[in-house]
Amino acid sequence: MEAETQGDWVAMVTARAPTNIAVIKYWGKRNQKLILPINSSISITLNPHDLSATTTVAVSPSFTADRLWLNGKEVSIEGDRYQNCLREIRSRATEVTDPKTSRIITKKDWESLHVHIVSKNNFPTAAGLASSAAGFACLVYALAQLMGVRERYKGEISSIARIGSGSACRSLYGGFVEWDMGKDDDGKDSIAIQLAEEKHWEDLVVIIAVVSSRRKETSSTLGMQDSVNTSKLLLHRAKEIVPKVMVEMRKAIKERDFATFARICCADSNQFHATCLDTSPPIFYLNDTSKRIISMVERWNKAEGTPQAAYTFDAGPNAVLFAPDKAKACELLSRLLFYFPPASDKKISSYVVGDVDMLAFKEVDSCFQPPEAEGTNCTRSFGELDHILCTRPGEGPLVLKDHLVDSSTGLPI
Amino acid sequence: MEAETQGDWVAMVTARAPTNIAVIKYWGKRNQKLILPINSSISITLNPHDLSATTTVAVSPSFTADRLWLNGKEVSIEGDRYQNCLREIRSRATEVTDPKTSRIITKKDWESLHVHIVSKNNFPTAAGLASSAAGFACLVYALAQLMGVRERYKGEISSIARIGSGSACRSLYGGFVEWDMGKDDDGKDSIAIQLAEEKHWEDLVVIIAVVSSRRKETSSTLGMQDSVNTSKLLLHRAKEIVPKVMVEMRKAIKERDFATFARICCADSNQFHATCLDTSPPIFYLNDTSKRIISMVERWNKAEGTPQAAYTFDAGPNAVLFAPDKAKACELLSRLLFYFPPASDKKISSYVVGDVDMLAFKEVDSCFQPPEAEGTNCTRSFGELDHILCTRPGEGPLVLKDHLVDSSTGLPI
Repeated sequence: MEAETQGDWVAMVTARAPTNIAVIKYWGKRNQKLILPINSSISITLNPHDLSATTTVAVSPSFTADRLWLNGKEVSIEGDRYQNCLREIRSRATEVTDPKTSRIITKKDWESLHVHIVSKNNFPTAAGLASSAAGFACLVYALAQLMGVRERYKGEISSIARIGSGSACRSLYGGFVEWDMGKDDDGKDSIAIQLAEEKHWEDLVVIIAVVSSRRKETSSTLGMQDSVNTSKLLLHRAKEIVPKVMVEMRKAIKERDFATFARICCADSNQFHATCLDTSPPIFYLNDTSKRIISMVERWNKAEGTPQAAYTFDAGPNAVLFAPDKAKACELLSRLLFYFPPASDKKISSYVVGDVDMLAFKEVDSCFQPPEAEGTNCTRSFGELDHILCTRPGEGPLVLKDHLVDSSTGLPI
Repeated sequence: MEAETQGDWVAMVTARAPTNIAVIKYWGKRNQKLILPINSSISITLNPHDLSATTTVAVSPSFTADRLWLNGKEVSIEGDRYQNCLREIRSRATEVTDPKTSRIITKKDWESLHVHIVSKNNFPTAAGLASSAAGFACLVYALAQLMGVRERYKGEISSIARIGSGSACRSLYGGFVEWDMGKDDDGKDSIAIQLAEEKHWEDLVVIIAVVSSRRKETSSTLGMQDSVNTSKLLLHRAKEIVPKVMVEMRKAIKERDFATFARICCADSNQFHATCLDTSPPIFYLNDTSKRIISMVERWNKAEGTPQAAYTFDAGPNAVLFAPDKAKACELLSRLLFYFPPASDKKISSYVVGDVDMLAFKEVDSCFQPPEAEGTNCTRSFGELDHILCTRPGEGPLVLKDHLVDSSTGLPI
């Protein structure tokens, strides 16, 4: 973790943290500052190989201020969210002894040492895939490693990530994760809990359909605040509906019951978007392409009589689709390629990306009209999707050896 | 009402009935057969000059069966909805004496006399504007006139129209109309009540933006049944929210309080569509054009700080917009023409139709970008709307002198 530089030392830790996709949605805060939600939620952590943030946090006596570089660009670290995370981690810092040099950084030292943070995503931010969850999870995890923070109770570090970005707390664990809304006013018990690790349901395949048109959307922070203030349906959802659905979803995950999982997942996504629409002024995250994807899945599921795939949409038009296994994922992918062929100037190899090999997908399958499409007036529409990303449930944060900070300059490499 | 023909007589009545647009939506039945709703609703009757059904009902001893012609085409009259309306009216028929010929048709006669029904709309069905409300209101009103039905209690005839098509009951009155959901199991008290006649708020202008793409939509009958069965939000809306909103909307109408009217009207439309989205599988009536219209109104209202216009959407993508007076209606129209100019092959005279004269609209106004559009990345999009219909609140059903049935043949003219 440590490196000598220009007569002064730099200590650093680099970590990688995954994104996650909620299957029971978080929408609405009961406390803005502490980011305490009005309902619990459940997510699936996505394979960090395909979607993750990598962050190096470095300290040195030579650093004169806390600084932050995101995806190659220095940005302000003055925002409350960063400051709150830094403060909470620093207050829990312990004495750290570097195993190589035996240099000791005391609890007192951490208070005055400035930090350089360099973070990047392995996916384009423009893809509209939530990056703040991975980013804050990674930052908090890396800082906690650097400063020797030991959890006084299970989930304490996730509660710090939560004050950076609510859903970031769920990215502290791999596999299947619940964010327990908690009861305490101080947010101590509003933490992430791993329901099952990624290997528990390793057949599950995740396919993300990234929609082309990228109009400016309502930020989820502002959107959910408007919903809390104006939607008459949201509180009913949070208080009466979600608690029951949480029980069912936990059970479905535990039993790897895809039919129940799919039913709840789709219904919860639709209900979340319903509360957005019930907001004044209404918030629209789903566009006509999103709806065509929903119809595609619903038509398929109806034709087969049992769920073949599930969909969920966050605060944007992109679909996150689930298939129970690789064979079904291939069928799902061939449907996506049939209904949403790439724009004419796009090669299939840059259209279907991510962990495509796992599917052993035969491209020729995409030429066939799925049986359930017959008799409907559904059209093939070129270029409505920007790309399709194949991935699967994945592991939680871990420490990496390669750093993003140059130990001689203390600046991004 | 009577005419001699081929040695036999034909008695007939022709009536015209208006459409109506709900501002507090009806969605969900508690009784399928009697069409009893799960919540009360409020509508505005639209000027029949612009949107209405005209229906002739004729009887003759020479008719051998009940027959029905809709918009020039004979269709089956066997459906429950027609049969139920016919049966209910016949059971209330009284002895009728023709004032001209003094011919008497007894209560007993009505039981055996067959009826020919010829009905047409003065607007294209393809426009996606609810025609069943006007149609059933007109049929039931005309039959009641023909057969001398006298209401035993106020609203009885509206309760018969209701079993033809729920919202048809509201078309039995002009102006501002409530459909009281009622309490009785037999539906006797589930009737329409006039809240105020059309002259009460005669400044109000209605502008209907008919959206071009006419994909097949979920029928409202099937859609609302799915919602009742699967939406966890719908019952909460019906039981907890609508009763309170009804009180506010009645008051807003009574006081001609456009700001409150607009706020409730938009929120209720959005909430109705939210419950559609919360249905499994989800129902989408709003498309991207609908959303652009909503954004246009919301942006304008926000910029002015107080509602300038209101929107509501039924089970389809067309927007029904309200402006508090002609001046605001002109501003609204110019905004529609700015954001949604006609397709290049369309003349403005066939694009903006209906009671355009009342607005004294200057076409040149449509060239200016509204101030609130500045700085937004909103685009002008040609041909997204098929046409724009200007109208206003209007009167209830009335009897016409010109018939749609040839008295010599008993067939449509």
